Amino acid sequence: MEKLVRGLRHFQTDYFSKHQDLFQQLSLGQHPRVLFITCSDSRIDPNLITDADPGELFVIRNAGNIIPPYGATNGGEGAAIEYAVQALGIKDIIVCGHSHCGAMKGLLKLDKLEEEMPLVYEWLKEAEATRRLVKENYSNLTGEDLLSITIAENVLTQIENLRTYPVIHSKLRQGKLHLSAWVYHIENGKVFAYDAVRHEYVAPSSPLEPLDPEELLPNSIGHPASWLSPEQAHRIYRGSYHHQTLKS
Amino acid sequence: MEKLVRGLRHFQTDYFSKHQDLFQQLSLGQHPRVLFITCSDSRIDPNLITDADPGELFVIRNAGNIIPPYGATNGGEGAAIEYAVQALGIKDIIVCGHSHCGAMKGLLKLDKLEEEMPLVYEWLKEAEATRRLVKENYSNLTGEDLLSITIAENVLTQIENLRTYPVIHSKLRQGKLHLSAWVYHIENGKVFAYDAVRHEYVAPSSPLEPLDPEELLPNSIGHPASWLSPEQAHRIYRGSYHHQTLKS
Amino acid sequence: MEKLVRGLRHFQTDYFSKHQDLFQQLSLGQHPRVLFITCSDSRIDPNLITDADPGELFVIRNAGNIIPPYGATNGGEGAAIEYAVQALGIKDIIVCGHSHCGAMKGLLKLDKLEEEMPLVYEWLKEAEATRRLVKENYSNLTGEDLLSITIAENVLTQIENLRTYPVIHSKLRQGKLHLSAWVYHIENGKVFAYDAVRHEYVAPSSPLEPLDPEELLPNSIGHPASWLSPEQAHRIYRGSYHHQTLKS
Amino acid sequence: MEKLVRGLRHFQTDYFSKHQDLFQQLSLGQHPRVLFITCSDSRIDPNLITDADPGELFVIRNAGNIIPPYGATNGGEGAAIEYAVQALGIKDIIVCGHSHCGAMKGLLKLDKLEEEMPLVYEWLKEAEATRRLVKENYSNLTGEDLLSITIAENVLTQIENLRTYPVIHSKLRQGKLHLSAWVYHIENGKVFAYDAVRHEYVAPSSPLEPLDPEELLPNSIGHPASWLSPEQAHRIYRGSYHHQTLKS
Repeated sequence: MEKLVRGLRHFQTDYFSKHQDLFQQLSLGQHPRVLFITCSDSRIDPNLITDADPGELFVIRNAGNIIPPYGATNGGEGAAIEYAVQALGIKDIIVCGHSHCGAMKGLLKLDKLEEEMPLVYEWLKEAEATRRLVKENYSNLTGEDLLSITIAENVLTQIENLRTYPVIHSKLRQGKLHLSAWVYHIENGKVFAYDAVRHEYVAPSSPLEPLDPEELLPNSIGHPASWLSPEQAHRIYRGSYHHQTLKS
Repeated sequence: MEKLVRGLRHFQTDYFSKHQDLFQQLSLGQHPRVLFITCSDSRIDPNLITDADPGELFVIRNAGNIIPPYGATNGGEGAAIEYAVQALGIKDIIVCGHSHCGAMKGLLKLDKLEEEMPLVYEWLKEAEATRRLVKENYSNLTGEDLLSITIAENVLTQIENLRTYPVIHSKLRQGKLHLSAWVYHIENGKVFAYDAVRHEYVAPSSPLEPLDPEELLPNSIGHPASWLSPEQAHRIYRGSYHHQTLKS
Repeated sequence: MEKLVRGLRHFQTDYFSKHQDLFQQLSLGQHPRVLFITCSDSRIDPNLITDADPGELFVIRNAGNIIPPYGATNGGEGAAIEYAVQALGIKDIIVCGHSHCGAMKGLLKLDKLEEEMPLVYEWLKEAEATRRLVKENYSNLTGEDLLSITIAENVLTQIENLRTYPVIHSKLRQGKLHLSAWVYHIENGKVFAYDAVRHEYVAPSSPLEPLDPEELLPNSIGHPASWLSPEQAHRIYRGSYHHQTLKS
Repeated sequence: MEKLVRGLRHFQTDYFSKHQDLFQQLSLGQHPRVLFITCSDSRIDPNLITDADPGELFVIRNAGNIIPPYGATNGGEGAAIEYAVQALGIKDIIVCGHSHCGAMKGLLKLDKLEEEMPLVYEWLKEAEATRRLVKENYSNLTGEDLLSITIAENVLTQIENLRTYPVIHSKLRQGKLHLSAWVYHIENGKVFAYDAVRHEYVAPSSPLEPLDPEELLPNSIGHPASWLSPEQAHRIYRGSYHHQTLKS
């Protein structure tokens, strides 16, 4: 706590004094471009890992970066989403999971939490779609592999849940909103983004800036810049979005 | 009521006596292949319009063929879905809306319902994602055109909501479940199915049975066997599933 | 699925083409006379077993033909009831259970469902009134006998629950609404209706059409055309409906 | 979005590469000392304003830094609180509001939000305790003054709400947990903390580090380093915190 108070003064005398114009401008209003949804985990600093200035990221943080389906809960998640899209006109939403996520570890041993942490238990049941998918589709995995795939699939679950919010549902139809699924790796500082065409988590790209060619070139394993093993990626590929098209 | 009682006897002496073997077999257990979700509207008879025998369709019927997102309500919808997929192993789910739908008419004048029919009002708020999308994307439409597009979009909303149910979320990943969006037209007896590739409602096909070539040939308007006008279809096309892929 | 698509065409070329006038008329509006509440079970086809044409039955279907008491849930059941009675002016409501009901089997082994089918588990808890009544009043029964009485009592439970809906409560007082309790037997195609005077499930009659005299004559057991044994019928009499009046 | 992707790379090549040891250590587990609850507002960067490294702050962010009383909602707030205190053993919780808060502006014109942003409307009703206190105690204020006092009082409301969580309630009794109320001023980069002895928001201090003597000396207004006017500060004193002890 003492360190934080010293930090407040350091911020004022250092960063703030150098960027007074920015803060003066920000005091007139915020115009963030991105809604960044991530975990409460202390090891994630959204602005740091994206090198974003104050004013750029509208942020929701809870345990496990979980966004329950529309109407399923009445906590702060829905209001922040609605405010971001409706009032601020934000057009990019990123759900960012992370390696070594304690919430996802909890999801994999859910029964043990009911007694000791009932609120965590109830909240993680909002990620039942993740738990069930992992249980039924990755029964061969254990330990770190199981945790990694749970983290990866959970972000995709939240993307699906986001689609059920009226304000998002409507903007998606108009092509005025983009949803991105990211996973941040604490140990190497890398972020991987879900590529819905390749059905893999890969180094993120952007329409206006081509991927680094080196990252596009297949490596010896054949999955360039991919995070999961080819086998894991294949599972996601076949499972996750292959059958997204409606059979008519 | 008298007519129904007479009908019961007619069923016994006519249909039942001719199909005793079927009913004998059905008394041992049900093995339906399809979960058919449709409106309570009296003008829809799921078995009649699909020429399905008893035992083929597991049926959910409510006002407006609405399936709230997972966790949003605690009515019978979720249980029937879970039972169909988990206990019965059903692999095909059809959400079937219909023309002249009273529930969708109500959705378009929602405010007027709060006083007179509070339960209908509350229930239709579960279709807020449809209402908002229509309001924001089809502001130029009125009357029958507006109703038609609302009916069509509402079925697609429910398809998205279905994806949030854990049991569906998981099976979709495994490619063991297919979701279909249908609209039944009372006035001409036709059913149109959403084609996620063409982004239109068209005459339904099946993998094993090719579409009637005549239906595949473009007509003078250029939209063969399509239900909505080219303009409307184009709106759905651009709006609905164009941007379904995740931007990474 | 392919069969269904073929069925759609068969419906159009056969039934629809022969009844175009009916469907043309129906496209102008629905005027059903009966709200028919039954199970999602695939073996039940309400229109088939009552020989009803399209337009005659407004239908609610969920797992176990359960209608929770007013206010207990926020699913689609209440809205469909309100719409049927208030907007459509329906004056007859039938709750129709059926033999071999999977939901009622589940109710008799509820604890085993919590893990595997949590939504079914939660939904069946809405039929706790049935479960408790059966547990406390039919402790001597097992197997098929227990299931039969559970199915029969459950329909009566739902009749009581229906009475709690404001729109029904009010119309009942005015004598403008009639509630009927039916059980459909898959194996013999028969429907039995609860007779509140005789306190038994018997072949249904109607005020305008006298019962078949043969059915009115006591048989050797003394319970003509009755479904349950005299002992079971007696239990229902004492247990649940002494003070209630049902139109059958 | 392109800027963020470039930012990810900048973070890796710059900050991460310089602090690899820190991240390597963090990948083994998190041991944050503080639960930092603040608004989703893009202009707040908790780590920046406290000069905190990754791993130091466990963060909850939602619209308006609102923590509903225990049991009032089932969103992510409760779970993150429970996890922070129970699983991570955190002993300091800070609720940090901020100037120019859009959520608090919304709270002051709540009725206008119901139609356009229903989820925001519902969420802000969780801050009704703030709204009512302000309405009944600061009826003479308008404009910026009213907004400032609302922001200040709202943080204190959330401190009271936090006390209702079982895990916090118990630790407070044991003296093992401290709650702090902060308000961050975007325009000047300063943070003010509620001082429960002086009943004012003042520059925060810490037990281990004496306050800057200059800040302790009364200024001409008589309220050194205080944010609100003496009148406002006095109102807070009488209105909300006479009998409470907060560590600042």
